[in-house]
Amino acid sequence: MTDKQNTKITEIGSLGKQALIQRLTQNFETRNQSTAKGLENDAAALDHSQAQTVVGTAIMVEGIHFDITYTPLQHLGYKAIALSMAKVVAMNALPKQIMVSMAVSSRYSVEALDELFAGIHRICLRYDTDLAGCDITSSMSGLTISVTAIGSADKNRITGRGGAQVYDLLCASGDFGSAYAGLLILEREKATFKANPNFQPDFASHEYVLERFLKPEPRTDIVKWLADNDIVPTAMTNVADGLADAALHLCNTSHCGCEIYEERIPIDYGTSHVCTDFGTNMLPVSLALNGGMDNELLFSIKQDDYEKIKSCPNIAIVGHITEQNRGAIMVTPQNTAIQLTSQSWNPSK
Amino acid sequence: MTDKQNTKITEIGSLGKQALIQRLTQNFETRNQSTAKGLENDAAALDHSQAQTVVGTAIMVEGIHFDITYTPLQHLGYKAIALSMAKVVAMNALPKQIMVSMAVSSRYSVEALDELFAGIHRICLRYDTDLAGCDITSSMSGLTISVTAIGSADKNRITGRGGAQVYDLLCASGDFGSAYAGLLILEREKATFKANPNFQPDFASHEYVLERFLKPEPRTDIVKWLADNDIVPTAMTNVADGLADAALHLCNTSHCGCEIYEERIPIDYGTSHVCTDFGTNMLPVSLALNGGMDNELLFSIKQDDYEKIKSCPNIAIVGHITEQNRGAIMVTPQNTAIQLTSQSWNPSK
Repeated sequence: MTDKQNTKITEIGSLGKQALIQRLTQNFETRNQSTAKGLENDAAALDHSQAQTVVGTAIMVEGIHFDITYTPLQHLGYKAIALSMAKVVAMNALPKQIMVSMAVSSRYSVEALDELFAGIHRICLRYDTDLAGCDITSSMSGLTISVTAIGSADKNRITGRGGAQVYDLLCASGDFGSAYAGLLILEREKATFKANPNFQPDFASHEYVLERFLKPEPRTDIVKWLADNDIVPTAMTNVADGLADAALHLCNTSHCGCEIYEERIPIDYGTSHVCTDFGTNMLPVSLALNGGMDNELLFSIKQDDYEKIKSCPNIAIVGHITEQNRGAIMVTPQNTAIQLTSQSWNPSK
Repeated sequence: MTDKQNTKITEIGSLGKQALIQRLTQNFETRNQSTAKGLENDAAALDHSQAQTVVGTAIMVEGIHFDITYTPLQHLGYKAIALSMAKVVAMNALPKQIMVSMAVSSRYSVEALDELFAGIHRICLRYDTDLAGCDITSSMSGLTISVTAIGSADKNRITGRGGAQVYDLLCASGDFGSAYAGLLILEREKATFKANPNFQPDFASHEYVLERFLKPEPRTDIVKWLADNDIVPTAMTNVADGLADAALHLCNTSHCGCEIYEERIPIDYGTSHVCTDFGTNMLPVSLALNGGMDNELLFSIKQDDYEKIKSCPNIAIVGHITEQNRGAIMVTPQNTAIQLTSQSWNPSK
């Protein structure tokens, strides 16, 4: 996805609020029967029949969660939705509807919002999800996107953060640290460009980590694979602020500890490559533990499901659940135990 | 509700994100059986059984929707929730859960957020609603609160904006223009205070309009009254941006027109009093049509329900539905027809 050059610039104020919302949402068609009443109403009415409804929210703030100088607007729209969907996915449910609230300054043109909604449209199509509500308001500065994602699942399959038991296997989807590695590259190229505006950013060989940062995907494939293989995790959480934070979160809610084996943590070659680029002080495992923004899943399963799970190429068994008094630790290849710690207030990730 | 003087100031950054969220949400207990999984998870799981789920969102941005110089934080928390609940109520459903996402700058202390959440707690208790999710992130400047309200109702009772038929009666709850009148008073006193900091703001005799602006209530009483009296509106909408905008919205979605009788529009004495204060150019009916922020309901019912509805002291019959080609008009006491127009992009209201 690339932003196309807009030749026409329409000020947001030149359209009425409803006309703007109608323009931005006109290509969105209802795809799910459960979207009983959608965009044209004050709220959305959903019919999830016997299933439970799962609702997750995510908020993205310009200057905190994204830098518009290197974030194509289509990607931004895509990512805002992906992050909210990830909350629903982390409950072992599939997203079916999204509702978008935006606060936008007059610095943005209608055409810019068109781009943003092209990204939203794209992810809705890809994940068969309906835009069931859209509200837009002003902001003093910049852009804030708040998304509510709604899904449903049989109540016996919905998985919370509490429920992990001692001896359960700890599993993870995807790889860790790569989104943060992508951010490092973007920030470096931006700084170089600032110093020398004639400088041409060089993103060669970093495509994977850049995509991980700019355009994350909700792991609905994992939810489907678990259902197809009749596995219900005992506990599950979204990995948004690093693997360490996610493990602590799951352990705290489940009143247990965990052991994660360093060599089992999936780290992509591209992440290691970025670390090499940046010098010897930056370790790939640090990015995995604390980098954040991976948008992956961490979950525990019963030992009985081991044979099934080891066949899934997209899931790694990274450790196991222990008694609470053991704490949450990472074991190095040299068999040293390191207490996992969550970064304090750093919500920019 | 008044903000108490905080003697202790704790920087948000001194707590971890999870510790902050836990502190702010510790007094919230689950009150609804339908809140199957709540705060401690990535998303909320809700069990609305056979009923449909209704989801509404509202976003409030500092400097646009509220001015912290005259908005007590408890009221702000209360109002943010009330506005999102109003979206659910406008579908003829009762709110059961809310999810709060906030972006907050370091200018706010933990104690300030305590105040905000005291207001959120208060409205949750008042309307038997559960806080089912809470996420907090940073902002570059100021405070943005995004709230998702979730409710449920039998699908035969859920009412959208489309569905009004010719000859239906057009009904409204509460009164119009008073919230905007409250805002005018607050802005006037603020301007006077700026010019002379020794000036003591004078709010005497304006209590009602101030409360209407600072602390609106979702009209769950109307939803309950309609259910008790076995009335299902044919169409319904939230009045957020003035009566004219709401009427146009309902008519456009229902493909109809309407006639509203000026003398039937409920206007409180306090609103007229403010208009008198501000001079002869300001007409109470203009505030009612275009003022906004009333947080009331506009809805259409079948003529057959006339006998029932006329007995409800909180509902006024303001007009009736016409053919689409008649347009949406207001008829003055002099029998002049005035086309209703919605204010263009002015989302600060």
